[in-house]
Amino acid sequence: MFEKPVDDETALKLLERHHGEDLFRLVDANRKRLRPWMGWVETTREPADSDAFIRDALKGFAEGTCIHFGIWHRGKLAGVVGPHTIQAMNESAEIGYWIGREAEGHGILTRSCIAVIDYLVDIRGLNRIEARCAVSNHRSRRVMERLGMQHEGTLCQSVKLPHGFEDTRVYAVLAAEWRERRKRD
Amino acid sequence: MFEKPVDDETALKLLERHHGEDLFRLVDANRKRLRPWMGWVETTREPADSDAFIRDALKGFAEGTCIHFGIWHRGKLAGVVGPHTIQAMNESAEIGYWIGREAEGHGILTRSCIAVIDYLVDIRGLNRIEARCAVSNHRSRRVMERLGMQHEGTLCQSVKLPHGFEDTRVYAVLAAEWRERRKRD
Amino acid sequence: MFEKPVDDETALKLLERHHGEDLFRLVDANRKRLRPWMGWVETTREPADSDAFIRDALKGFAEGTCIHFGIWHRGKLAGVVGPHTIQAMNESAEIGYWIGREAEGHGILTRSCIAVIDYLVDIRGLNRIEARCAVSNHRSRRVMERLGMQHEGTLCQSVKLPHGFEDTRVYAVLAAEWRERRKRD
Amino acid sequence: MFEKPVDDETALKLLERHHGEDLFRLVDANRKRLRPWMGWVETTREPADSDAFIRDALKGFAEGTCIHFGIWHRGKLAGVVGPHTIQAMNESAEIGYWIGREAEGHGILTRSCIAVIDYLVDIRGLNRIEARCAVSNHRSRRVMERLGMQHEGTLCQSVKLPHGFEDTRVYAVLAAEWRERRKRD
Amino acid sequence: MFEKPVDDETALKLLERHHGEDLFRLVDANRKRLRPWMGWVETTREPADSDAFIRDALKGFAEGTCIHFGIWHRGKLAGVVGPHTIQAMNESAEIGYWIGREAEGHGILTRSCIAVIDYLVDIRGLNRIEARCAVSNHRSRRVMERLGMQHEGTLCQSVKLPHGFEDTRVYAVLAAEWRERRKRD
Amino acid sequence: MFEKPVDDETALKLLERHHGEDLFRLVDANRKRLRPWMGWVETTREPADSDAFIRDALKGFAEGTCIHFGIWHRGKLAGVVGPHTIQAMNESAEIGYWIGREAEGHGILTRSCIAVIDYLVDIRGLNRIEARCAVSNHRSRRVMERLGMQHEGTLCQSVKLPHGFEDTRVYAVLAAEWRERRKRD
Repeated sequence: MFEKPVDDETALKLLERHHGEDLFRLVDANRKRLRPWMGWVETTREPADSDAFIRDALKGFAEGTCIHFGIWHRGKLAGVVGPHTIQAMNESAEIGYWIGREAEGHGILTRSCIAVIDYLVDIRGLNRIEARCAVSNHRSRRVMERLGMQHEGTLCQSVKLPHGFEDTRVYAVLAAEWRERRKRD
Repeated sequence: MFEKPVDDETALKLLERHHGEDLFRLVDANRKRLRPWMGWVETTREPADSDAFIRDALKGFAEGTCIHFGIWHRGKLAGVVGPHTIQAMNESAEIGYWIGREAEGHGILTRSCIAVIDYLVDIRGLNRIEARCAVSNHRSRRVMERLGMQHEGTLCQSVKLPHGFEDTRVYAVLAAEWRERRKRD
Repeated sequence: MFEKPVDDETALKLLERHHGEDLFRLVDANRKRLRPWMGWVETTREPADSDAFIRDALKGFAEGTCIHFGIWHRGKLAGVVGPHTIQAMNESAEIGYWIGREAEGHGILTRSCIAVIDYLVDIRGLNRIEARCAVSNHRSRRVMERLGMQHEGTLCQSVKLPHGFEDTRVYAVLAAEWRERRKRD
Repeated sequence: MFEKPVDDETALKLLERHHGEDLFRLVDANRKRLRPWMGWVETTREPADSDAFIRDALKGFAEGTCIHFGIWHRGKLAGVVGPHTIQAMNESAEIGYWIGREAEGHGILTRSCIAVIDYLVDIRGLNRIEARCAVSNHRSRRVMERLGMQHEGTLCQSVKLPHGFEDTRVYAVLAAEWRERRKRD
Repeated sequence: MFEKPVDDETALKLLERHHGEDLFRLVDANRKRLRPWMGWVETTREPADSDAFIRDALKGFAEGTCIHFGIWHRGKLAGVVGPHTIQAMNESAEIGYWIGREAEGHGILTRSCIAVIDYLVDIRGLNRIEARCAVSNHRSRRVMERLGMQHEGTLCQSVKLPHGFEDTRVYAVLAAEWRERRKRD
Repeated sequence: MFEKPVDDETALKLLERHHGEDLFRLVDANRKRLRPWMGWVETTREPADSDAFIRDALKGFAEGTCIHFGIWHRGKLAGVVGPHTIQAMNESAEIGYWIGREAEGHGILTRSCIAVIDYLVDIRGLNRIEARCAVSNHRSRRVMERLGMQHEGTLCQSVKLPHGFEDTRVYAVLAAEWRERRKRD
């Protein structure tokens, strides 16, 4: 409950304080997979770290600057999705997302992103939804392309990952395009 | 979305930052009705006050000490319900609730409280749900009795309202009782 | 000095920063006795913890939400007493108290509570003084009964102690009753 | 109660939240007299300002950096005295003081300062008590001289008052001197 | 002093607390010119607002997230330049800049940006310097092009200005490119 | 750059976040020399401590209460100088300073202090510059005397150092005297 259905087996729920252990277990089980792309994996060492992340995420939610949803699949936390940066002044948001290995490969992440963009456009009234990925993060890139987001540019050496600097691809979709695309589908 | 259905026309949603204007309008339309029982009515003078209330409520949510849900009925905000005090250590919460005149009298508030108690017992794992009302607040008292909460005591002159001190009736239900009662229904 | 006499050998003093070591020693000497009823005993491991408690207590004092007095008996800290929750709006306070084994059994705690209630009623102008105890905490219950406080109700499983949930008895006395009672004595 | 007697008609009490109105009235009645020496008089415009001063003073008390006592004379607040700066590391404090016109001229302020220095030396264990006054503030200077404090130097143009820069005289007494002096008296 | 020369008549100085009045006067004299591109112009109504901006800018400087330099030309504050966002993790910064009408058109702003990028690359060791401008802000765009920054993409409707949404052009230069370019000049 | 030249081989620069390692190395190499006079040496155990010091110093800079400059000599950090206490209301500041053994004995520290006092008097418009030293700290005392500061008094046992209490000599110079003295030189 207090959730948005994504498909028959999947739903989004705001990450809350009592989800800390679930979140830590998921991160812990996916360390190798996440480490190349996510700086915070290294500093997530125990459940208390995930709990602190959720508390800070909820404080940002209270300030109106971010929203982090858990992706629940078949009753288990499978990933995280949501806008980590909301610019109220520019009516825009940048979303991020990741999913554990177990739930990957069935379109769950893409459908979850659609649910989030629907929410940001329809309920929050935002005008522009942006997302970024390192050029060699092909999985992430495919999600943005499936969402129909436009590639707007590639920012040279704009992220430092464990293996060194990488270029970042910037994608975006506008509210008007999103609604148009939805009609077509 | 991100809501819990209460009945065909009603759902609960966490009060978020973009609900400030809706909340102010509802309070403003029910001032006379709420003022005798709610100290905060006097200091809610403009939408910014309701926005500040929601921001503080979300900060409490981030800290794990309270949750405030809006009651949405036929697409409009009709009331507020939720635990204003959560004692993690004692696995207990005290809930509060109010509803505007327009939506009153159809069991909406009682059903909303049931949804909240279900959430606190089933999802949050709390053991004891408490509620209080001034002795002369008969509407509030009837809600607790309909919920099957037990009257545990009456606290003498424990609240100061615009018309003077009043006794408070304390009601509570335990998780085990709540589940038992649900089975019977 | 800066104290209120309780009897020839006893006085109350606001707990100040330089009392941290005294407080820790007292807690440390009474661990077994306090642990069943006081959640904070477990987390009081060194003098710095008692110092932190006093600093926070003084911050609450600055905010007007609590006052913690030390009970000094024959020149030694023997216990703590005072309102841990003051509701200015409702002109009420809930007091707590405990005393070490050494000073127990001579009415010191009861007389100290009387001094505190006198202060809250006469100087602070409060209308209602409340106190609570777990049902099996017979010593605490006897203090409230000696103070002439009324038993107003028993809150089912409202506190979680090391041995499990327990019911709490709520006692209170109103300013008018307190003054009346004082005249009779 | 919770006070230290100064003489038969005078006592010191820690300034608490419920003293705000008393303090404001005293400042307000002594504006002309205080303004030349006290920068904060200009910004004390309503009871809320005095209340804010007390709240901040109590926060400093919680941090261990200052203590502000009210001087109560014949049941009325007559002045303020206490260390506004405590340097725990150097075991020293700088005290300040002022008294309203009504209570002036009977040695009340000097006796109150003695009570404060006794407290700082005997109870707090400080080694050095310092005080300062602008050179033209003859009343303040006489208090320090009556206390037997030594004049240690004059700091050129070290304070800016409404009438311009003024030199400041620094006085101090050490704990050993204070105890010695007490024996002689 | 404590400045970096830009040319014979121009130097950069960290904006400090005593520059508040100078900054306000400059903003006030350039309102019409700045308003279309700078959201903060509307909320800069008095010197206190510029002072608050500087205090916050210095707090960001203390946290290592931004640096705001004043451009001093012929002894007067003429503009502001510096990184408003520093990402230590990614060794990158995004710079912003503006100059008043009086000092415009002599290459002062471009030379000031060069001095800032030199500082960020040589002293701070950053790897990537980014800048952005609304597509219709031709003056700003020319500055980036004169600096030899590469156009990496255009972000659709990514800024909301008084006249509506506008696309933003993203430019950047890497440390290696910057040093190479310097050698050639 | 962003520096003020002191002599051909020396310059002052505001201590910034990226100087933390340099500062720690300097303190670490001068522990024995500094420990008798500086309480903070004992608690500076790793580079993170120096970094925290700089962050706090910059926060004070943002609040307008202090400025800490590094003394750079032949390209290396050699010491620290600046006002650790600025009293805007009294238009006065108290400066502190220390230099490592390597750079000592060539007048560098005195010339750096002159540069700082010039800045405080000419740019900040302060009226009084004060400095203090323990009586047995002869090196520090000679610096103040070379600066032409007046000895205004000696504060008895006003500092507690590792070897015990010590008297402090207070020195000061007024803006008018400073300018006069500069003309004569």
